[in-house]
Amino acid sequence: MPTSHAPATMTGDEIVALSRQHTIFEWSAQGAVDPIPVDRAKGVYFWTPEGKRFLDFNSQLMCVNIGHGDPRVVMAIQEQAAKLPYANPFMATEVRARLGAKLAAITPGDIDCFFFTNGGAEANENAIKAARWYTGRHKILARYRSYHGATAGTITLTGDPRRWAAEPGIPGVVHVPDPYHGIQRGWDPVDDALARLEEVIQLEGAHTIAGFIIEPVTGTNGILVPPDGYLQGVRALCDKYGILLIADEVMSGFGRTGEWFAVDHWGVVPDILTMAKGLTSAYVPLGAVGLRRKVADHFRDKVFAGGLTYNSHPLACAAALATIAVYEEDGLVARARQMGEVMAGLLADLAARHVSVGAVRSIGLFGIAELIRNRQTREPMAPFNGTSPEMAALSRFFRHEGLYTFVRWNTFFANPPLCITDAELREGFEIIDRGLAAADAAVA
Amino acid sequence: MPTSHAPATMTGDEIVALSRQHTIFEWSAQGAVDPIPVDRAKGVYFWTPEGKRFLDFNSQLMCVNIGHGDPRVVMAIQEQAAKLPYANPFMATEVRARLGAKLAAITPGDIDCFFFTNGGAEANENAIKAARWYTGRHKILARYRSYHGATAGTITLTGDPRRWAAEPGIPGVVHVPDPYHGIQRGWDPVDDALARLEEVIQLEGAHTIAGFIIEPVTGTNGILVPPDGYLQGVRALCDKYGILLIADEVMSGFGRTGEWFAVDHWGVVPDILTMAKGLTSAYVPLGAVGLRRKVADHFRDKVFAGGLTYNSHPLACAAALATIAVYEEDGLVARARQMGEVMAGLLADLAARHVSVGAVRSIGLFGIAELIRNRQTREPMAPFNGTSPEMAALSRFFRHEGLYTFVRWNTFFANPPLCITDAELREGFEIIDRGLAAADAAVA
Repeated sequence: MPTSHAPATMTGDEIVALSRQHTIFEWSAQGAVDPIPVDRAKGVYFWTPEGKRFLDFNSQLMCVNIGHGDPRVVMAIQEQAAKLPYANPFMATEVRARLGAKLAAITPGDIDCFFFTNGGAEANENAIKAARWYTGRHKILARYRSYHGATAGTITLTGDPRRWAAEPGIPGVVHVPDPYHGIQRGWDPVDDALARLEEVIQLEGAHTIAGFIIEPVTGTNGILVPPDGYLQGVRALCDKYGILLIADEVMSGFGRTGEWFAVDHWGVVPDILTMAKGLTSAYVPLGAVGLRRKVADHFRDKVFAGGLTYNSHPLACAAALATIAVYEEDGLVARARQMGEVMAGLLADLAARHVSVGAVRSIGLFGIAELIRNRQTREPMAPFNGTSPEMAALSRFFRHEGLYTFVRWNTFFANPPLCITDAELREGFEIIDRGLAAADAAVA
Repeated sequence: MPTSHAPATMTGDEIVALSRQHTIFEWSAQGAVDPIPVDRAKGVYFWTPEGKRFLDFNSQLMCVNIGHGDPRVVMAIQEQAAKLPYANPFMATEVRARLGAKLAAITPGDIDCFFFTNGGAEANENAIKAARWYTGRHKILARYRSYHGATAGTITLTGDPRRWAAEPGIPGVVHVPDPYHGIQRGWDPVDDALARLEEVIQLEGAHTIAGFIIEPVTGTNGILVPPDGYLQGVRALCDKYGILLIADEVMSGFGRTGEWFAVDHWGVVPDILTMAKGLTSAYVPLGAVGLRRKVADHFRDKVFAGGLTYNSHPLACAAALATIAVYEEDGLVARARQMGEVMAGLLADLAARHVSVGAVRSIGLFGIAELIRNRQTREPMAPFNGTSPEMAALSRFFRHEGLYTFVRWNTFFANPPLCITDAELREGFEIIDRGLAAADAAVA
């Protein structure tokens, strides 16, 4: 096995300079990017070529759920690469067949048929097409404070500011609020949120709406854990009006929340469930659209009019099968629940100890803190879609101290790999604790 | 190294049955699919679990350009998997940096900065966004008889019938004809084709058009090799009106036509060039958008508002670097030119020997034959967007005889891996020759 790590032949500075010269960094003005050079990674850590170690408190992009460098997945990739890295989507392969069967076993209810894509965006693209074909209706409801991808269809579904640069988008998408209205206004009561949703359904014309796509637990836009009753109520409204419920579990799936899928917390079975990220823990790109049997059966006689060269990519399917086996062998879903309790306690400690922490939320190992600069007005430490000297300083402090996580607007995230130990979790929170001292000083 | 091929544990029939039960086959009604079960592949061949061998005359999906199972690429994947399969897009890695620099060296002109995606569709999605941001204009011209992907933006760009099921698409896309009008009407003269294009530019308002996206040699819609002067004329019109020329080289790139990129045949430098498929020969999913320096520089101060979790995926970048090294070490681009001459001769032989062959076209190892059922009217052997008993029989014959290639409408393709030998090429054409006997019998 090629497990010896040949030393990098480029320095970190050289890697950064050449990457900046010849590659585009996403969602950024290129003059402003300051990437971390990464040489290798293991478990919850990654290293620069010069050996600086980072604790990965964001699982890279909320995706390396099993942790870095798991030898079981590495071996599966190596073996599939040697046997058959690729066959085209019109072929049947053993890994494709087995992955379909395995996903049918772990996804909720009678979701048992899967269309494979390269990632989450393409999964959502195909999900809304399937909903339109199945229902014969055209509109798609989506929510503000959501992210569904950056292709033309999925960026239109997206409800955060990343949508703006890609407008006008596809026709027929209607955004509705979710129950959360920011740190100052807080949450709608469940009954009120559902009544407002039903009102929009009526005003849009229920018979024109094919699907409602939601992140069951909203990810980047705030780890918004819905109050109990909300998702069940959404499911009931979709049933009432013949609207397909599409759960985007790209970020919340595969143990992140302490269940295989976030919807499992509330016993809700969506009609279509999309996934990526944790599906392979990002070792190989892969996404999938799961269909309930009635939706899959629609395509027995009707053409499924979607496709892509790397659909059902064998190398990716092999990586997914091995990744799912790791979740099972190591009990990572239960572990996320268990360590999630520990992390919830550590987040609560932060909230108790720091005046700058206005709110913490988490479910499993999917966590966030919102910072405020005023305890009375609860004004956020950075404005909507903006930053502030204090948030920029916190970000720099984390990087300096070797903690990698997302700092966005007035929030920072805690989404470590599910294999994280108690000691590693506390190591991260110790750095966060020190970093918040400066933020506290800014609070009126 | 894990090169021992453990025997498949499922039979071909079991693989097909389980795949059909739990996975969706693209562009198909599921009740009608009859996939080939694939167990392993090497060079220009692949095998079912039961050992039936197929000669791959379509490089799977016009993508496995270097051939199957190349040990140099397999090894690179295995080593990168062990070292660092994934780092997120905000990180810099050595393989990302080196791939950017390498692509800058092999792409035309001053294209020297790359945005990485999962595949061709996402590359084209980002290409049209970049053109819109750079020019501040909104419309995109695209051509009929083209395929650019199946995401919401790229299926709108697409000019073949696969677009219909996804309409209405994104706003602002205008389709123009290409110079070919089918086997019965043939080609526009270059001057006329360019005059018709300029007329549409004027009627649409040149100042409203951000980009013109074309397959320089149209792929699935007919291996349409433009007459000399056409691409140069398109380039001149784009320059005249400040429209960015976007070359979709997803299928035509990486040696397929006998040059690194198809535009190289005519010395044309597009402003944006998209790629996938041959970039990694499909061993790992990867796409890229290449930008000329002036376009890349636009994003120094302006945000590049696109992204995806698997952007600059290290495993994919490593596979691409190794694949490009194979093209270079084995001289595969020159070889495609050389073997392309042989294939052109074999295609011409078919046309001379078979009354059913109404036209053959090829450039490098990118070839097609169009079948007709009447030598006078040149009526195609199957209608536009349809099939016929004769074409279905030809497809069955190829499969029975162990030749894998695309049979579409009234055409079949010859797009073998670039490593194909003279004997292997003749092996395929010998099967085709026998298969055409039945088609000949149908000709009036």
